[in-house]
Amino acid sequence: MTPRLPAFTDAPVRQSSVRAHNLALALTTVVNSANPISRAALASATGLTRATVSALVDELIAGDLLTEVEPPPRTGAGRPAAGLAPAPDGPVGLGLEINVDYLAACVVDLTGAVRHRLVSHADQRPVDAAQALSGLAALAGRARELAEADGLRAAGAALAVPGLVGADGRVRVAPNLGWQDVDARALLQAELDLPVAVDNEANLAALSELRAAGGRPSFVYVSGEIGIGAGLVLDGTLYRGVRGWSGEIGHVSIDPDGPACRCGAHGCLELFAGQEAIQSAAARSSTARALTAAGRALGIALAAVVNLLDVDTIVLGGGYAPLVPDLAGPIEAELRRRVLTFDLAPVELRAAALGADAAMRGAADAVIRSVQQDPAAWLANRLSGRAS
Amino acid sequence: MTPRLPAFTDAPVRQSSVRAHNLALALTTVVNSANPISRAALASATGLTRATVSALVDELIAGDLLTEVEPPPRTGAGRPAAGLAPAPDGPVGLGLEINVDYLAACVVDLTGAVRHRLVSHADQRPVDAAQALSGLAALAGRARELAEADGLRAAGAALAVPGLVGADGRVRVAPNLGWQDVDARALLQAELDLPVAVDNEANLAALSELRAAGGRPSFVYVSGEIGIGAGLVLDGTLYRGVRGWSGEIGHVSIDPDGPACRCGAHGCLELFAGQEAIQSAAARSSTARALTAAGRALGIALAAVVNLLDVDTIVLGGGYAPLVPDLAGPIEAELRRRVLTFDLAPVELRAAALGADAAMRGAADAVIRSVQQDPAAWLANRLSGRAS
Repeated sequence: MTPRLPAFTDAPVRQSSVRAHNLALALTTVVNSANPISRAALASATGLTRATVSALVDELIAGDLLTEVEPPPRTGAGRPAAGLAPAPDGPVGLGLEINVDYLAACVVDLTGAVRHRLVSHADQRPVDAAQALSGLAALAGRARELAEADGLRAAGAALAVPGLVGADGRVRVAPNLGWQDVDARALLQAELDLPVAVDNEANLAALSELRAAGGRPSFVYVSGEIGIGAGLVLDGTLYRGVRGWSGEIGHVSIDPDGPACRCGAHGCLELFAGQEAIQSAAARSSTARALTAAGRALGIALAAVVNLLDVDTIVLGGGYAPLVPDLAGPIEAELRRRVLTFDLAPVELRAAALGADAAMRGAADAVIRSVQQDPAAWLANRLSGRAS
Repeated sequence: MTPRLPAFTDAPVRQSSVRAHNLALALTTVVNSANPISRAALASATGLTRATVSALVDELIAGDLLTEVEPPPRTGAGRPAAGLAPAPDGPVGLGLEINVDYLAACVVDLTGAVRHRLVSHADQRPVDAAQALSGLAALAGRARELAEADGLRAAGAALAVPGLVGADGRVRVAPNLGWQDVDARALLQAELDLPVAVDNEANLAALSELRAAGGRPSFVYVSGEIGIGAGLVLDGTLYRGVRGWSGEIGHVSIDPDGPACRCGAHGCLELFAGQEAIQSAAARSSTARALTAAGRALGIALAAVVNLLDVDTIVLGGGYAPLVPDLAGPIEAELRRRVLTFDLAPVELRAAALGADAAMRGAADAVIRSVQQDPAAWLANRLSGRAS
């Protein structure tokens, strides 16, 4: 049976034993350290004895999770200690993304480096969900082969989808893909023989922006593809909602009596600022006019977000990331016009730090984090040969 | 110097000493107990020794915070112990509310009972902030005299305002009152010689609904007066936003090119569903039509809230509470049309449990809670005669 990835969560993972807890503590302390850290410094940071730390570190090194690096040359007296760092050749996370007009896969190692990145542009709407996922599994297989050629073994995969995902990994609805109740996790697990997790693409992208930002920020991440989704980070935590379905900004009404949306409503944001809307408006007039109109619609919806949530930062990601220079002006004009507190406190607008790759990177990061949060499970699966 | 009320917060208050901590622990345990609780049961619930509990209880009884009540008659053998309960004649909270067309004050005791309630209907827009607050102080003074005639002493006052409140108790903007940067706390403290706290009316109302609901609900509370505000309770906590200015649903755009709003924007919800908008629409056509149009606009804005936040409950309060039978139909029709997940999961719509009084009650509750969370401060102020 394929082991199941821990559910994505921002809460700490409950550890089954002191050893498992201490392995996770030692590993995450090294991961969160800006520089390589000595065993002595690790003991002092964790409050564990040096003997305990040495035993844990030996186990993590043998399991390809940590590596010892040479200390930087020092001019002073005394021999500096070797430092511990995440192993670049340890388990990797397979980050997958399916969207309306592309499939993507990336391989991210424990240091956070992207080792391989594959994108396949093709409209997924003419094919059914099983065919689309089969195409994605093939792309994931190629990324995995590239990783294995480097001697890297995948600990698991995570999939970013533009839709509503249940706690069981089923995609309940993905309107722009035309999906209804698709068990994406089961289908991918069967094809890849790897543990697979599934999450909303904007949520995964917002989580990767949150890690890049650090601290306890509050922001809305907006992902602009053919559909438009948002991830809400409030006081440093991804807010998922009662059922996990928060962030459906694409269906906020811009013009209640406007054109009909695929979702059944009228005048949704997607119809004014989704990528197809921008393209067809550009064909009718000019690209500059189309982007201005899209920015205006985005600004109206984002003003509602700021009025409701009092976030101080808006992050534009996905297909919007490279368009920020064109979109920022009209968005800011609407914010100035419509946000009640605009004169009292600024709202920062910026492109996603990870650009259009944020969701796929967030998916790979989720796998890496699941290994970091429970290294004992990885070590056990590795020995029994089940995790590859 | 008037002692300052602790800032409103959902986080536990940091206690300055073990005694202060234990007094708060004992008092809140009694308050949160559904029935009167014996000293022995209190010791077991708090993990304190019986001797410590008895000393704490004696101090809380002497300070008018707890009272001993007769046990209910029992048919079995043995003499049942006397039970502890919050003292009905202990300190009371003065809950104040200022809104566009009324002033209100209530007196709530430690058991949560409303002892007095005064409402004065008058348009506050023709007068300036100092005059309006002076009128409110007079109403508060009358409520306090009624309380003192019952032998009740006010521990403090809290004010609910329809506007943006800073952490320092200043009202930064209250668009419908025409207020800009009004130090409501300082003005009321000077008139009442009592510690005063100030908060947004929808936030206070949402907090009182949260306490009435119990558990960890997620809901949006919508307060409908001439302006419209919202309090967002997410996963059982009031979400205030980065600057404390969340919930400005009244300025969510319903028609981006619609009529001009007092805030400077166009087509805000308030222009379609505020009480003056409803009244003037009713004068033009009929009350039924006016309420249908208001419900439709509310439904469009609330669909945005549900799409963004995935809350499963909408609570209509303030002036909307008695209108729920008329508003529910058109609101639900818009939710059905516009909420992406409507077919997957229900959204409950209901009137506020406390009706139009929720904000004023929430203000009084905030005072009561500040006493419960730090009884040592109340006891010290009481002895020095400063808290009355």
